[in-house]
Amino acid sequence: MTGITSLKGDKRLVLVSGRAHPELAEAVASQLDTELVPTTAYDFANGEIYVRFGESVRGADAFVLQSHAAPINEWIMEQLIMVDALKRASAKTITVIVPFYGYARQDKKHRGREPISARLIADMFKTAGADRLMSVDLHTAQIQGFFDGPVDHLMALPLLASYVRSRVDLSRLTVVSPDAGRVRLADQWSDRLGAPLAIIHKRRDPTIPNQVKVHELVGKVEGRTCVIVDDMIDTAGTIVQAAEALFENGAAEVIVASTHAVLSGPAVDRLKNSRITEVVVSDTLPIAEDRRFPQLTVLSIAPLIARAIREVFDDGSVTSLFDGQA
Amino acid sequence: MTGITSLKGDKRLVLVSGRAHPELAEAVASQLDTELVPTTAYDFANGEIYVRFGESVRGADAFVLQSHAAPINEWIMEQLIMVDALKRASAKTITVIVPFYGYARQDKKHRGREPISARLIADMFKTAGADRLMSVDLHTAQIQGFFDGPVDHLMALPLLASYVRSRVDLSRLTVVSPDAGRVRLADQWSDRLGAPLAIIHKRRDPTIPNQVKVHELVGKVEGRTCVIVDDMIDTAGTIVQAAEALFENGAAEVIVASTHAVLSGPAVDRLKNSRITEVVVSDTLPIAEDRRFPQLTVLSIAPLIARAIREVFDDGSVTSLFDGQA
Amino acid sequence: MTGITSLKGDKRLVLVSGRAHPELAEAVASQLDTELVPTTAYDFANGEIYVRFGESVRGADAFVLQSHAAPINEWIMEQLIMVDALKRASAKTITVIVPFYGYARQDKKHRGREPISARLIADMFKTAGADRLMSVDLHTAQIQGFFDGPVDHLMALPLLASYVRSRVDLSRLTVVSPDAGRVRLADQWSDRLGAPLAIIHKRRDPTIPNQVKVHELVGKVEGRTCVIVDDMIDTAGTIVQAAEALFENGAAEVIVASTHAVLSGPAVDRLKNSRITEVVVSDTLPIAEDRRFPQLTVLSIAPLIARAIREVFDDGSVTSLFDGQA
Amino acid sequence: MTGITSLKGDKRLVLVSGRAHPELAEAVASQLDTELVPTTAYDFANGEIYVRFGESVRGADAFVLQSHAAPINEWIMEQLIMVDALKRASAKTITVIVPFYGYARQDKKHRGREPISARLIADMFKTAGADRLMSVDLHTAQIQGFFDGPVDHLMALPLLASYVRSRVDLSRLTVVSPDAGRVRLADQWSDRLGAPLAIIHKRRDPTIPNQVKVHELVGKVEGRTCVIVDDMIDTAGTIVQAAEALFENGAAEVIVASTHAVLSGPAVDRLKNSRITEVVVSDTLPIAEDRRFPQLTVLSIAPLIARAIREVFDDGSVTSLFDGQA
Amino acid sequence: MTGITSLKGDKRLVLVSGRAHPELAEAVASQLDTELVPTTAYDFANGEIYVRFGESVRGADAFVLQSHAAPINEWIMEQLIMVDALKRASAKTITVIVPFYGYARQDKKHRGREPISARLIADMFKTAGADRLMSVDLHTAQIQGFFDGPVDHLMALPLLASYVRSRVDLSRLTVVSPDAGRVRLADQWSDRLGAPLAIIHKRRDPTIPNQVKVHELVGKVEGRTCVIVDDMIDTAGTIVQAAEALFENGAAEVIVASTHAVLSGPAVDRLKNSRITEVVVSDTLPIAEDRRFPQLTVLSIAPLIARAIREVFDDGSVTSLFDGQA
Amino acid sequence: MTGITSLKGDKRLVLVSGRAHPELAEAVASQLDTELVPTTAYDFANGEIYVRFGESVRGADAFVLQSHAAPINEWIMEQLIMVDALKRASAKTITVIVPFYGYARQDKKHRGREPISARLIADMFKTAGADRLMSVDLHTAQIQGFFDGPVDHLMALPLLASYVRSRVDLSRLTVVSPDAGRVRLADQWSDRLGAPLAIIHKRRDPTIPNQVKVHELVGKVEGRTCVIVDDMIDTAGTIVQAAEALFENGAAEVIVASTHAVLSGPAVDRLKNSRITEVVVSDTLPIAEDRRFPQLTVLSIAPLIARAIREVFDDGSVTSLFDGQA
Repeated sequence: MTGITSLKGDKRLVLVSGRAHPELAEAVASQLDTELVPTTAYDFANGEIYVRFGESVRGADAFVLQSHAAPINEWIMEQLIMVDALKRASAKTITVIVPFYGYARQDKKHRGREPISARLIADMFKTAGADRLMSVDLHTAQIQGFFDGPVDHLMALPLLASYVRSRVDLSRLTVVSPDAGRVRLADQWSDRLGAPLAIIHKRRDPTIPNQVKVHELVGKVEGRTCVIVDDMIDTAGTIVQAAEALFENGAAEVIVASTHAVLSGPAVDRLKNSRITEVVVSDTLPIAEDRRFPQLTVLSIAPLIARAIREVFDDGSVTSLFDGQA
Repeated sequence: MTGITSLKGDKRLVLVSGRAHPELAEAVASQLDTELVPTTAYDFANGEIYVRFGESVRGADAFVLQSHAAPINEWIMEQLIMVDALKRASAKTITVIVPFYGYARQDKKHRGREPISARLIADMFKTAGADRLMSVDLHTAQIQGFFDGPVDHLMALPLLASYVRSRVDLSRLTVVSPDAGRVRLADQWSDRLGAPLAIIHKRRDPTIPNQVKVHELVGKVEGRTCVIVDDMIDTAGTIVQAAEALFENGAAEVIVASTHAVLSGPAVDRLKNSRITEVVVSDTLPIAEDRRFPQLTVLSIAPLIARAIREVFDDGSVTSLFDGQA
Repeated sequence: MTGITSLKGDKRLVLVSGRAHPELAEAVASQLDTELVPTTAYDFANGEIYVRFGESVRGADAFVLQSHAAPINEWIMEQLIMVDALKRASAKTITVIVPFYGYARQDKKHRGREPISARLIADMFKTAGADRLMSVDLHTAQIQGFFDGPVDHLMALPLLASYVRSRVDLSRLTVVSPDAGRVRLADQWSDRLGAPLAIIHKRRDPTIPNQVKVHELVGKVEGRTCVIVDDMIDTAGTIVQAAEALFENGAAEVIVASTHAVLSGPAVDRLKNSRITEVVVSDTLPIAEDRRFPQLTVLSIAPLIARAIREVFDDGSVTSLFDGQA
Repeated sequence: MTGITSLKGDKRLVLVSGRAHPELAEAVASQLDTELVPTTAYDFANGEIYVRFGESVRGADAFVLQSHAAPINEWIMEQLIMVDALKRASAKTITVIVPFYGYARQDKKHRGREPISARLIADMFKTAGADRLMSVDLHTAQIQGFFDGPVDHLMALPLLASYVRSRVDLSRLTVVSPDAGRVRLADQWSDRLGAPLAIIHKRRDPTIPNQVKVHELVGKVEGRTCVIVDDMIDTAGTIVQAAEALFENGAAEVIVASTHAVLSGPAVDRLKNSRITEVVVSDTLPIAEDRRFPQLTVLSIAPLIARAIREVFDDGSVTSLFDGQA
Repeated sequence: MTGITSLKGDKRLVLVSGRAHPELAEAVASQLDTELVPTTAYDFANGEIYVRFGESVRGADAFVLQSHAAPINEWIMEQLIMVDALKRASAKTITVIVPFYGYARQDKKHRGREPISARLIADMFKTAGADRLMSVDLHTAQIQGFFDGPVDHLMALPLLASYVRSRVDLSRLTVVSPDAGRVRLADQWSDRLGAPLAIIHKRRDPTIPNQVKVHELVGKVEGRTCVIVDDMIDTAGTIVQAAEALFENGAAEVIVASTHAVLSGPAVDRLKNSRITEVVVSDTLPIAEDRRFPQLTVLSIAPLIARAIREVFDDGSVTSLFDGQA
Repeated sequence: MTGITSLKGDKRLVLVSGRAHPELAEAVASQLDTELVPTTAYDFANGEIYVRFGESVRGADAFVLQSHAAPINEWIMEQLIMVDALKRASAKTITVIVPFYGYARQDKKHRGREPISARLIADMFKTAGADRLMSVDLHTAQIQGFFDGPVDHLMALPLLASYVRSRVDLSRLTVVSPDAGRVRLADQWSDRLGAPLAIIHKRRDPTIPNQVKVHELVGKVEGRTCVIVDDMIDTAGTIVQAAEALFENGAAEVIVASTHAVLSGPAVDRLKNSRITEVVVSDTLPIAEDRRFPQLTVLSIAPLIARAIREVFDDGSVTSLFDGQA
């Protein structure tokens, strides 16, 4: 038969990183026993981003890691541009790794004439050339369905829960959802640690006119060690208010466990100055030195991401990473 | 300038219906003061569906209503085929109306190697030719983001809550979520009716080995009138168990309010034989005469759908239908 | 050069099956000396289908076999959902095998305002994630062009014709098309077996008013062994009428040869009670034990499908399976 | 409400024509009582085509007529380029009118490794920006399904059959299919004119070795007036051979009726020198003066196309043009 | 015929603006004698953008204006999100107006493994839901071809040239291209003003080793009034160097004319401190008060954009705005 | 794990050629030490093209070479059809090689209501199934951005410049752009050869009414050896006029260097009869024997294309072919 046959059936994995969270990318590369592809990335004077890879990615299985930290629109755009460059440089497959997925909270129209930005983000990565998406603890699991392709959805729950378990007396523990929207997550923690559940939610106080809303606690927390669970800590307003409500209801101690340490604006001050004992997070987002505070514990997500990349590259099973756990 | 100019700037709205729920379609048409487009639809001997419209739909704004009742795959396919026929018959726009959206519960991968069928359904309607989707109380609001185009998401909450309010003493009412996944909905009811919240969830009993799960009630229901809220009643297993748990905890009365009366398999028997006082639902799904039971109250969704169609056709505002309500 | 290189250049073929025709899938797997991927598939109470694969399909060349038997819409939907699950589980390529392609007869608009459901089916499989389609004796070969990708179109003609040749005296054989639409197929049989052709078609009887249609025989069949050929036997109405017309015109014997044994509604009774000597079909569709009848001969299509899968997987030539035959 | 409201709800129809068949375009424009949009179209020195419209088409319903005559690739490309220019010039809708659809015979893979060019043509028009397709007597009706959008499929059968009826004694007429692939068309003629059917097909002569093929006549033609029907006359080889076979079998007279007068290569000489009495065609394709011959009768398709355009523009019914006829 | 007919054939134009350049949007609205749709747009604490329109845009022809000023990625993302919101709010058509198109200079791969970000931007707007693009003086005209749909490409040349003509003695004027890439633009100015051309380009000095590059002037400028033309002034480095080179070659006076006043980083200082007499720009980009300097003249582009919007809305001709000019 | 594992990880490269420039395809194959896939390609009587590959291409990396020579529309269509056939024959990847890319000059709208045919061509190849594009010296580099996928853009500049360098005294050389649109290319030559630049452009003569245009020379050429550079020589009108203008301005000698020898219409006569010393081109386009003339030198592009194919197939770097050169 006519043609040239090559026995070179080998595959090549390359890992590239944007500028948002280089420490995490380095840690993942180190776990994989490889190095990041040398990449030039900088801003032009008017803010346009320039990207160029320092070596050929032709035919490679490329993984491009960028966490959607602040300045979030800058880093999203950078990652999109990197995907475009990978596509035009003939990468065989392109996997977008977003440890923290930006705009995940805009996952539906809360009111008319709003965007669904989380879907838009997914579509833009597809348009740029992404074949696959990998993320950790999406704000809602339905976002998996926003991307038209395989999504590897990793969970930090085992990492966080295992740490919490090592720190508290489980028999005194109560899992708390800080609002009505996080009850399902609290339910998973409750089930995993065998601890009872409590919920804080807001509603109009029927005894007071003018629609004043009050924080209502459902469940019992008196004398208990409470772990407030949430997927992210943004301004920490809800969480600190929830902690206060717990103490008012007699809680003995309050711990916070959350995957994504967004820590915007007043978050650090609020947490530092609160009565919360410990704030346990992962490093899906970068945390500058000057924003770290005594109660903060940061667990590394790099081993989990590295293992998932390995399974993807080797055609193994990402599902198996969470067997019996979700 | 060359060309033929026509002053005919009029628009035409046509409403077509599949075979799943003709009563609802007739009711909507009646509310709109129009008639359904005469349509031929039947099954060939081997089960293939045949559809043909009895008059021209060229240039019309077509609305095709089908509720995804049982046999659900049959009716989904029929609606897809009707959309294809409308597209090829040159309808100007095609709006798919699914009062109950099939496969909505498969809106994420619960475990590896599962489909996300709710996204697949949305994509298939797009592929067939749908421009817009209209639905009532999607199982999760994120499904709006599965469709690549405008989604008019109608809410039965005002209809159901307004009825419940007229039937109970609000000061004795507690809103109950039958599991951890419906707390957000219960929260909306709680806020709307100014009533406290309770939640039932399952977890492993830490005192018993072998991972036995128990129903745990969070919140207070003793002596209260409880309204269990859910988006749909399928087999009614969870709801009847929740009602039992409420009675065991001293509830005085239990009412159930739910948008979609799926009422599969043992649902009717379970509800009929339970201690539940009243089951309030809408008619987004057909309920055969022989599946109606004494406690059942059915409220008509047709006026809401008709008003939404009118707003869409007149380029008005569907959002305004829910002003101040969501 | 940076990156991880793996010498693992191996490929993996996996075969999965829906619930429509497990016997055929098992037979194909057996021919391939492999086993079907363990798959969970069942209906929820309201008829929604649940599917999950029991082991990783990541990176595999997946073949998903489902014949569009009754209940046809159920099985089409199940196959679509399986394709979605394979896509989201990162199968490398997905080949849809439909031994009998549903809705193939709706391959054009016979009249205005009809769908072209056969194109819709092709588009939906593409949307779900199918890369390639494999089918046997499509109702019209143009359906190949409905799918946007490679189609492997297998032919049962060699299998059926070879059996017929072994059973009859070729010098006495006449090939008969039961209506005007199947003449091209009859022509292929005629050419392959070196036998003359006859055609039955319906037309208005010019001597009788009111547009009564009569069956008209074109060609000579007196004293001949007639083999009526068709791609499918649905209700068997046309075929049994054709057989009657042949006997009326002096045919000595009538045999029927057809790829797809749809056998809807009255088909079995009609054939069983007819004067037809033998009905030769393949097993592209399941035939329940209680629908088999004395004159029925079923030939297995599994070896042909297995060989085609093998050629696809090994980058061989499917065309070569029919060399000199089509 | 904010915004500018215009009461200008008028629509504008514009008709543009490529260079393939300006006479037909002029005739259609005349039937519509309008003029063609002035268009510049010429070839650059290296054969690239330049197109520009002489006036604004913004917001118009544009119809672009080009018949795929020789040089066929040139005219297909010109029409594609015109569609692109219309799209970029903001036409509201674009309808491609191809009285003769090029590459229609390549509508399936006859053998492995062939293209399906008829699908490719449909996809390219879609890619260029076409919203709708209008054609006359597609080689196979399935080509309607190749285009992803509405197709208005016009039929010349009423025009041709009505002319033939006026010229012959119907009681002496036999409709003849010149090969196995045109029997369905012959069947329609047979049904419409109440005349019997005959078929000519080729097969191996079983009495002679080496696979010699012979023309075999099925049906009776002795003393009859035969009308050979086909969708197109290309080189006229098959048709003239069929006519010869009819005369050899005693036919009294032979007429040919065909929609598309391709008349390639030796066609004119073959027909002129044959014993065929009359060749009736439409003007879907241009016929140069020097290729017209005494037996040729050309019927104008312009009124039919003009009526269909009118129905499309007025949101009327194209189906109604053929009521009771197909 | 069944259905509801509405005589409401009116169209509605709505203009919405992002936060990048509200003055220009207000000016355009004022020219159109309308008001901007009230819009809520702000950043969440972590930088995610929130957008919501204050009134219904259903059925409207929406124009969304955003100039890609700094912070450029923020404003591009905001505009994308606004398009998504308009699409989901059922706008009939969406026109993206980008007076300055971001990333236009990344319109090709200058070297391997670079992105083509200008194409990516076009594709993302298409993905978000844009139907049409309007821009002023794209960096290269080929960017029109990056968008899959109509592009209205406006030119500031008449505005700028007309102003320059009013200020100088044309007989003493020479048009200068500041580098090899802008010669085509200079050629247009030269042709329009009837003035000779000069070019500055960089090349290796063949007399000096190590590839030192020198600015070389091609053409005569001694004693002339030179107008350096460019599509944008970014850091002003090239332009100020060009001016210096002109003065060194004896130019009497130097004026700069440019559509887009990007004015990044050192631009203002460089220009202010140069010997350039006047810098003429349009207001396609916002120029903060503290970045304006004595030599700067800003001409308003609002009337041109407003006229183009009007032509688009009225289905008039945008081409006519530049008749005889390009 | 279930499934069949094959260790066959080998890849196969196949090269197919259209009929436009078989000599080049043969030369490339020879450089690659392989043979072209045997291909049947001819025109039917009415001009429709038929294509079929003589052996299986299933699973292969296919490269399909066709230069867009005259008759250009015929050869573009042939290549599109070949791509369709490769896609349907299950080629793994399809790379379209167009040494000369047709319609490249229609890369923007020069005036309203024109097409952007260069984008249309790119989209049609994508629609037909092309994964990648390879071309030599695109008319404008932005055309890379018209194709939605990787583009390997090869440059003949090193080949041509290296030849010119060997033929002239560099110290006497001036590089000339024949019009304003080619200055960037001339700039690259100037930089590469260390030679000064001159430009010819047309403008209205301000001293003469009625907009007569004159050729104006910018730069010095007296006594110099001038090399006019352009990407293509079409009718040679501009180039011969430029040469005349150079001689009029005292040029000692004129050489022309151009990648693409289109040589349409009067080109050969014009060049042959001019005072140009030598015309250096590559063989991206075929040049018939009878169109070759004494001053013509043709350099082979085949080695460059072959090396690029090899890099693509081996997942090497095409960028490296031009290191330090562009």
